Amino acid sequence: MNRTALIQLIQRKQSFLCVGLDSELSKIPAHLLDSEDPVFEFNKQIIDATIDLTVAYKPNLAFYESQGLKGWQSLDKTMQYLNSFKDEVFTIADAKRGDIGNTSRLYAQAFLDPSSSLNFDAITVAPYMGEDSVSPFLSYADKWVILLALTSNKGAFDFQLFENKDGKKMYQEVIEKSVTWGNSGNMMYVVGATKAEMLGEIRKIIPNHFLLVPGVGAQGGSLAEVAKYGLTKDCGLLINASRSIIFASSGLDFAAKARAEAMNMQQEMKAILLEI
Amino acid sequence: MNRTALIQLIQRKQSFLCVGLDSELSKIPAHLLDSEDPVFEFNKQIIDATIDLTVAYKPNLAFYESQGLKGWQSLDKTMQYLNSFKDEVFTIADAKRGDIGNTSRLYAQAFLDPSSSLNFDAITVAPYMGEDSVSPFLSYADKWVILLALTSNKGAFDFQLFENKDGKKMYQEVIEKSVTWGNSGNMMYVVGATKAEMLGEIRKIIPNHFLLVPGVGAQGGSLAEVAKYGLTKDCGLLINASRSIIFASSGLDFAAKARAEAMNMQQEMKAILLEI
Repeated sequence: MNRTALIQLIQRKQSFLCVGLDSELSKIPAHLLDSEDPVFEFNKQIIDATIDLTVAYKPNLAFYESQGLKGWQSLDKTMQYLNSFKDEVFTIADAKRGDIGNTSRLYAQAFLDPSSSLNFDAITVAPYMGEDSVSPFLSYADKWVILLALTSNKGAFDFQLFENKDGKKMYQEVIEKSVTWGNSGNMMYVVGATKAEMLGEIRKIIPNHFLLVPGVGAQGGSLAEVAKYGLTKDCGLLINASRSIIFASSGLDFAAKARAEAMNMQQEMKAILLEI
Repeated sequence: MNRTALIQLIQRKQSFLCVGLDSELSKIPAHLLDSEDPVFEFNKQIIDATIDLTVAYKPNLAFYESQGLKGWQSLDKTMQYLNSFKDEVFTIADAKRGDIGNTSRLYAQAFLDPSSSLNFDAITVAPYMGEDSVSPFLSYADKWVILLALTSNKGAFDFQLFENKDGKKMYQEVIEKSVTWGNSGNMMYVVGATKAEMLGEIRKIIPNHFLLVPGVGAQGGSLAEVAKYGLTKDCGLLINASRSIIFASSGLDFAAKARAEAMNMQQEMKAILLEI
């Protein structure tokens, strides 16, 4: 999906919500465990209950890999289902991959190639190994790299704030350097909602790029704060919520409760979008 | 496998060779493509031809993930085969994973848990997200994290040499900080052979930790140089070669040619070990 189509999708749904499909088997409602593929069944019901409110879905690969072959089958089926809603959803492989060029090329093929069974729109990539680890992911038309910049976890402070003699921090160096590898039509950045005040600094470097913002909801970040510092005229934000939506209830009503949570966020987003 | 057993294995085989199973389907000898699982068949023959010369095997996950479900089956079978040689090989998942704590925990379970089908001895981890992204991998007894420090690729210079006001570089900060998260019995570091002269600096920070050294062979690093700066009294090195061994020939003789290449390296290593 290209940038224009993504922006239109946000306008059409009046939402910039991304739902993280962190579908951990041990947290899935008990009544689904008898189905043939409980993880897929869970994802399908979550998707059906939220798709009109949601711009993007983001399966985190760890939750599938940890189930071995069965997990990959669940992911495959989830992506076939999501890809059947052509142009209605943006899909993100939360993979945080990154390897030497020769190897990143194969990850890119697995996750982004239109002929692959997964065929995601975007993939999250870790920057530590530099340009040749990232650029193979940029070689597919209308596909996106979402590069880790400033993450939402506690450990983010360990290395991302490492500072040079001019006071430039590692995450700023990552953004400044990588911004030349692609453009605002094929690169986004991960910036945690728990560091909303730093969004102002980031917007000075990349005024137009989309940001994928985790950490609203279960991790405590505020949607209003993120919008205050990060919103652009094209929106420029995808706000992710995972556990607060998909595990809003562990009962028979899990899909309805997930919808209610997604609706709360979408209503807040709609109000924000009206002010652009 | 614990540190003592690893050192004994190195002494017994007079080798510190790690063979990278970067088994790309398009490079596998044509005569294997008719077999039920060409990648597993290739790996099995490579393992059989080199196991007496080789301390560790390192499948790079990209080469398996890029084949989807079939790739995971090949990896599963390869690991079942390697795990049948109990105490005779050290196994490394070259995965370069790293995510928020909650998610890294699931990757750790998938790759390291003794009850998992993969059950690797070690996994490569990317440091960018900090301590809580790494520590879940350190919670399994006799299992190892191999943290990216200074990689062998061109892009390594982009961020790993980012320097603070005291001249400390990012990769040095990664080693200095992370060394307190584990110990020399459950942590190693990736240091590329193409930067051998920096090994001296690294040994000042971690005199005893094992280093996994890629970049000898196809990428041009020198074994003698690496040993000169990196060797410890316990060896302290695992030198990886991938393509130069496994793709030494694309013909019927691929396994014999792989053995000859591995033998060359093992003989050089034997001479180095005799000098400790």
